[in-house]
Amino acid sequence: MHVVVNAAMSADGKLSSRRREQVRISGDEDFDRMDALRAASDAVVVGVGTVLADDPHLTVKDEARSSERVDAGEAPCPARVVIDSRGRTPTEAAILDGTAETFVCVSEDAPTSARERLGERATVITAGSGRVSLVDAFEGLEQAGLERLMVEGGGELIFSLFEAGLVDELCVFVGPQIIGGRDAPTLADGDGFVEDFPALTLEAVERLDDGVVLCWEIRS
Amino acid sequence: MHVVVNAAMSADGKLSSRRREQVRISGDEDFDRMDALRAASDAVVVGVGTVLADDPHLTVKDEARSSERVDAGEAPCPARVVIDSRGRTPTEAAILDGTAETFVCVSEDAPTSARERLGERATVITAGSGRVSLVDAFEGLEQAGLERLMVEGGGELIFSLFEAGLVDELCVFVGPQIIGGRDAPTLADGDGFVEDFPALTLEAVERLDDGVVLCWEIRS
Repeated sequence: MHVVVNAAMSADGKLSSRRREQVRISGDEDFDRMDALRAASDAVVVGVGTVLADDPHLTVKDEARSSERVDAGEAPCPARVVIDSRGRTPTEAAILDGTAETFVCVSEDAPTSARERLGERATVITAGSGRVSLVDAFEGLEQAGLERLMVEGGGELIFSLFEAGLVDELCVFVGPQIIGGRDAPTLADGDGFVEDFPALTLEAVERLDDGVVLCWEIRS
Repeated sequence: MHVVVNAAMSADGKLSSRRREQVRISGDEDFDRMDALRAASDAVVVGVGTVLADDPHLTVKDEARSSERVDAGEAPCPARVVIDSRGRTPTEAAILDGTAETFVCVSEDAPTSARERLGERATVITAGSGRVSLVDAFEGLEQAGLERLMVEGGGELIFSLFEAGLVDELCVFVGPQIIGGRDAPTLADGDGFVEDFPALTLEAVERLDDGVVLCWEIRS
């Protein structure tokens, strides 16, 4: 399995404002880069916070890319995965619209009613108690044939993935604005590390739109 | 007056861990770049939080650079400035050691005793009530002949300077590690912007040590 985290942050490391309203950080070129990365992935993964805040669709937007996938014997779009410990993904969420295969990873503590509700529109993977065990959930995804995972956030999920040692690559668009705010979501939130900080190797630097994309490999 | 903010942040935009312990984010090359920037400045500015957490000396470390300053008729080191609304800079702080001129900017609400204590070792500038008025404080610094200011943090001061529209340039070393933490200090903390985000223009991208330096100009 290969896990790439892809995100766009402001010059000061924020994913959005303290109000958690989406801020347009990147532009068309970075959007296209993200779409290509989606098309090259078996699944696109987000945390439930991102579903609740932005209601993303997570599909491939470029039709040529979808066609290429189909020509290669794949579905037009990669699968969509929500990490959702308590089963809070709304029934009307865009990722449950049936345009692509969807997985919802919940913990054992998610209400049975939520699991049943979500099971009507997605494959439910139960892993861990209290919070989703990401290691077990990702093992379940791998067993379902999903090898190339792209994670699109948010900051809580990204931190948890680094904590679990599950990230292979990190691509970040750094955008031309200051968002600020001690309570604004950042690229990696959670409790944070206080020692043994995950170490990265800078693999590529590319100017794009009015910012720059930094691609890091995670040293194991 | 020309104000450059210079800082080093992790790949996820943190200045240090949630414990506010210093993390070595950059390396010798970035340290040398910072030292050159100090030597080219009239004053180095920090917030009192940085003084209390790190007790920095803020002097020019390279002797050749100090000599060049002296040859040009300047002091060996730039002045040091603390933004310290309540006058909390400890008497034994390294920046009060007399090796360079020092200014402490306090608000009208700083206790008289603190102002007197600090006045024995530094020039005290009083500006604003409650919190230091940065616009007035910087005007005071300009009147004292300080034209080229370099700001070294922390994130609360940096946000306040963006809020006051006082920043001309932002240079950030982005380092090869993840620190994480929703409570870890970031490049720009404070309340954060929710609209009218300060817009930047990317002027330079340079790989240095195991990371990259991004230099942005602030669009007025």
